Amino acid sequence: MEIGAGMDADELVRMMEGCGFGARRLAEAVNIYEEMLSEDYTRFFTLAGAMVPAGMRNIISSLIRDGRIDVLVSTGANLVHDIIEGFSHHVLGDPEASDSGLREAGVSRIYDVYVGDDDFIRFEEILQGILPEGAERMTGTELLRALGRKIDDERSILRAASDAGVPIFCPALSDSMIGLQAWLFRQTHPLNVDAFGDVGGLVDICYGASRSGIVIIGGGAPKNFALQAMLVTPNSFDLAIQLTTDRPEPGGLSGASLSEAVSWGKISPEARMVTVYGDATINLPLMVASALTRLSKRG
Amino acid sequence: MEIGAGMDADELVRMMEGCGFGARRLAEAVNIYEEMLSEDYTRFFTLAGAMVPAGMRNIISSLIRDGRIDVLVSTGANLVHDIIEGFSHHVLGDPEASDSGLREAGVSRIYDVYVGDDDFIRFEEILQGILPEGAERMTGTELLRALGRKIDDERSILRAASDAGVPIFCPALSDSMIGLQAWLFRQTHPLNVDAFGDVGGLVDICYGASRSGIVIIGGGAPKNFALQAMLVTPNSFDLAIQLTTDRPEPGGLSGASLSEAVSWGKISPEARMVTVYGDATINLPLMVASALTRLSKRG
Amino acid sequence: MEIGAGMDADELVRMMEGCGFGARRLAEAVNIYEEMLSEDYTRFFTLAGAMVPAGMRNIISSLIRDGRIDVLVSTGANLVHDIIEGFSHHVLGDPEASDSGLREAGVSRIYDVYVGDDDFIRFEEILQGILPEGAERMTGTELLRALGRKIDDERSILRAASDAGVPIFCPALSDSMIGLQAWLFRQTHPLNVDAFGDVGGLVDICYGASRSGIVIIGGGAPKNFALQAMLVTPNSFDLAIQLTTDRPEPGGLSGASLSEAVSWGKISPEARMVTVYGDATINLPLMVASALTRLSKRG
Amino acid sequence: MEIGAGMDADELVRMMEGCGFGARRLAEAVNIYEEMLSEDYTRFFTLAGAMVPAGMRNIISSLIRDGRIDVLVSTGANLVHDIIEGFSHHVLGDPEASDSGLREAGVSRIYDVYVGDDDFIRFEEILQGILPEGAERMTGTELLRALGRKIDDERSILRAASDAGVPIFCPALSDSMIGLQAWLFRQTHPLNVDAFGDVGGLVDICYGASRSGIVIIGGGAPKNFALQAMLVTPNSFDLAIQLTTDRPEPGGLSGASLSEAVSWGKISPEARMVTVYGDATINLPLMVASALTRLSKRG
Repeated sequence: MEIGAGMDADELVRMMEGCGFGARRLAEAVNIYEEMLSEDYTRFFTLAGAMVPAGMRNIISSLIRDGRIDVLVSTGANLVHDIIEGFSHHVLGDPEASDSGLREAGVSRIYDVYVGDDDFIRFEEILQGILPEGAERMTGTELLRALGRKIDDERSILRAASDAGVPIFCPALSDSMIGLQAWLFRQTHPLNVDAFGDVGGLVDICYGASRSGIVIIGGGAPKNFALQAMLVTPNSFDLAIQLTTDRPEPGGLSGASLSEAVSWGKISPEARMVTVYGDATINLPLMVASALTRLSKRG
Repeated sequence: MEIGAGMDADELVRMMEGCGFGARRLAEAVNIYEEMLSEDYTRFFTLAGAMVPAGMRNIISSLIRDGRIDVLVSTGANLVHDIIEGFSHHVLGDPEASDSGLREAGVSRIYDVYVGDDDFIRFEEILQGILPEGAERMTGTELLRALGRKIDDERSILRAASDAGVPIFCPALSDSMIGLQAWLFRQTHPLNVDAFGDVGGLVDICYGASRSGIVIIGGGAPKNFALQAMLVTPNSFDLAIQLTTDRPEPGGLSGASLSEAVSWGKISPEARMVTVYGDATINLPLMVASALTRLSKRG
Repeated sequence: MEIGAGMDADELVRMMEGCGFGARRLAEAVNIYEEMLSEDYTRFFTLAGAMVPAGMRNIISSLIRDGRIDVLVSTGANLVHDIIEGFSHHVLGDPEASDSGLREAGVSRIYDVYVGDDDFIRFEEILQGILPEGAERMTGTELLRALGRKIDDERSILRAASDAGVPIFCPALSDSMIGLQAWLFRQTHPLNVDAFGDVGGLVDICYGASRSGIVIIGGGAPKNFALQAMLVTPNSFDLAIQLTTDRPEPGGLSGASLSEAVSWGKISPEARMVTVYGDATINLPLMVASALTRLSKRG
Repeated sequence: MEIGAGMDADELVRMMEGCGFGARRLAEAVNIYEEMLSEDYTRFFTLAGAMVPAGMRNIISSLIRDGRIDVLVSTGANLVHDIIEGFSHHVLGDPEASDSGLREAGVSRIYDVYVGDDDFIRFEEILQGILPEGAERMTGTELLRALGRKIDDERSILRAASDAGVPIFCPALSDSMIGLQAWLFRQTHPLNVDAFGDVGGLVDICYGASRSGIVIIGGGAPKNFALQAMLVTPNSFDLAIQLTTDRPEPGGLSGASLSEAVSWGKISPEARMVTVYGDATINLPLMVASALTRLSKRG
């Protein structure tokens, strides 16, 4: 490994290919991602952890707009903060600030990122204005598409997905401020979202995906929801990349090895797969920048 | 710290009280848990990570039967494996086994625990037999209570909760085999579970909880769902214990400090709270054994 | 797993034996430790991490006095704090205290443990009084034995080792306050400690150890020094227990699997071995209490 | 954050500056490193973890040759592998290979990097040929400089340091194959290396460093040795960067916060400092590439 001034992200990653440990894993992730983006795969992307508050929003929405994500599975929180970013901005704060002081000041903390109470008030006003009403049963995906259409912000993940016809699955939608607002809305408006409505939609996509790849950020319910849908089909993922801070030994799903998913039939035994252990706010931008550089060089 | 033969769990933990690092945190967790169990608190318990496959099932169901959990918030997977344990047993396996070999043998791996395909087939038969049918909209909690009533196993978490009238909230119910089975069932039977149906129920409990405590295992959607429900009430948690392998710095909720939740108003600035970093399969039994010993000594 | 009031540490651990993840690993560690203590093994114990400041001192010194450690390999810091504990006490502090405030107050922090500047002044006085002087070349082990003889505290690790004839190897002795004091002392007194003087002594012990076991706390130089000495002999460790918070993937020695040491020839391919991932201030007391209880029941 | 094809490492890092979590920490590390390299600081660099086997060797030796490291503090293992890389190459292997199979094949594993037994045999031959002999007491630093002069490889860290007059401190030199070879050599040749010989040299450098910065890779004895030397002077570090996978809560030095070192007086209360949690094989190249790009743009 030899470092020079002005190296681009891909040159850096190519050097990592001959290295050990995390560097090698990251380089392999870029190789797999390049394959996923350049060949004909149905591309899944799952998003957990506070990636939008941390500033990863534009990466995701650009990938959607550029046709590089076919299915997004997300936590509710990332979508909440996607909406908030449309009218306000998360502020960098102090991870060691007094939390009772912040409470008095009306500031909520996400590690070193701050969100103001007034942002949540504005969020409530917006949601109550754009939540769709209707008596007939709808799915969470339909609800999110309806919201996306009303969000006037090109950089929004919800908007980008709505524009691009990319479905967003949110298996724990009630577990978010969107869920809270939907519940409030429903006190006075008809709204009927089916708890199991999205299972079929995702399973159908998996059935139709003769070749598929998945990028898993942070694990959680989004990871499980995508893998479980594939499980009930004859297919399995051919390419898989996982960026996580968790480790396998405590047995939780977020840290589970991709190999473990092979035993379940979720990922193909012949799949190319790699887990990069570390902070996705570093590894995701580096992986995306490097893969895009390669695609651009290919022309 | 002085170790002798025959020390009971509580003697061990009391010695840890004067120690630093994790030992001190665990000792403080027991102090808080003793307070939570011996005084008049509404007791929340959130469960993420593969705690049931790992063998923690009886601890949870006993706590429920003994009136030591008032509200359980769980991942779907733990409830699925709770049902499986009612008719079969998870088998200890090899975390380094060949996963493609396991697939061929029809075995799914959860780190070092094995579940057989036949268990999932039996699970399907059972679920299809006990899922409730009905045209009117129900909540996830009602669905789980209906399942619990049909499970003929005293040690089952679902059954214990059903018997004890303890609600089980599962914010990502569709993200589990229960969700998959419910979706299959619905192809041929009426079943209408409301995606936001449980928000109100949990918020109401939080409103009514003038004093409350929470034990958080592993974070995830269960942690967020419980804290978020408290957020929209004038109350906040007075006692909080978190057992997690995650850490705060990568910004994810599962590793977020309890102090961070104070900035949101989810936990009281005056709350007693502690995070024990480590494997909950070790720390939970030790904490529970120690707290129960203290309660028993009090008589 | 079923938890009852009054369970002793070993009953708790025996229940963990049928569990998965960390619980299973801890139970296996106790099984191996019971074997190590009850059969004829040369018993190595390596100590890294601030175990003495955290309160683990008496566990170690009791194990030495009771003949359960034959060779101790330690960081210098643990020995420094062993001496300090002989005349003062580490104080429990606040891990989030202002460190510049602590500096002004003359307090040094080790996570949540405080040590006062006056303790280090007293430490200097003591060391300058008990460091051995002499022109001929000595080993680090001899230096530490000389110090141990002068420490008037039954609970001291150095004293216990000196009394019991247990050698203490400290591969980075200069990297500690003992090293600093020795260097000061040498400005005015003859003292000649050989940087490689202890290699032979440890290798000889390894040569003589037809059956051997090792408990590794925290990794670091002590782990490597013990394993490397075994490497150059025809022998290898037959039993190995590792308690660490590190993980294998970043490639550092402290998190390296015990299996990796098999490839080097440091640990036997037939060895019984287990790593327990987690905080040793919890797992070490639990393991020792459980193993001693078993030995006591055997009579 | 907006990712485009062809972004250079520094553009990527500058985008991270407005992000949260690890990305922000990495961006701050580059800011501090830019300051450290462009202004007049005495620059310390401590190296733990298997960084040389992982491929970081050329980064370190180039930094030394370019005058960007004034003092290197290293584990012995990194120096051993530096010598091995001079005549052979570490091979990328399989972290899940059978370790007993590797043993039979004469291959030693460092996570996913392989070293052959024949490399260690050749290493032995080389060392026995270049170890300096002499009756008078020398320091470890002098020994390493003597070795460096004999290594015929421009990319070697030892050679680069020897050429550039940069001292290499190795506080646990006996805890390495160099230590083993020195011990063997001494059976038949005069060699007298002083265990405390390097304390004074490093303390003197600290005394003379009116402004100083430190880059800490992986913690361990090298971190402690550098910080401890500063401790006994009236000075303290003005800039500090730590790349580590450890975390503060278990209390070990490798994961200890830099702030903690302020309480000891090792780092100045006014210092700029940041810890980047994660795999240094990713974060170090990215940090160095970005900082060098900035220096190059400045001209």
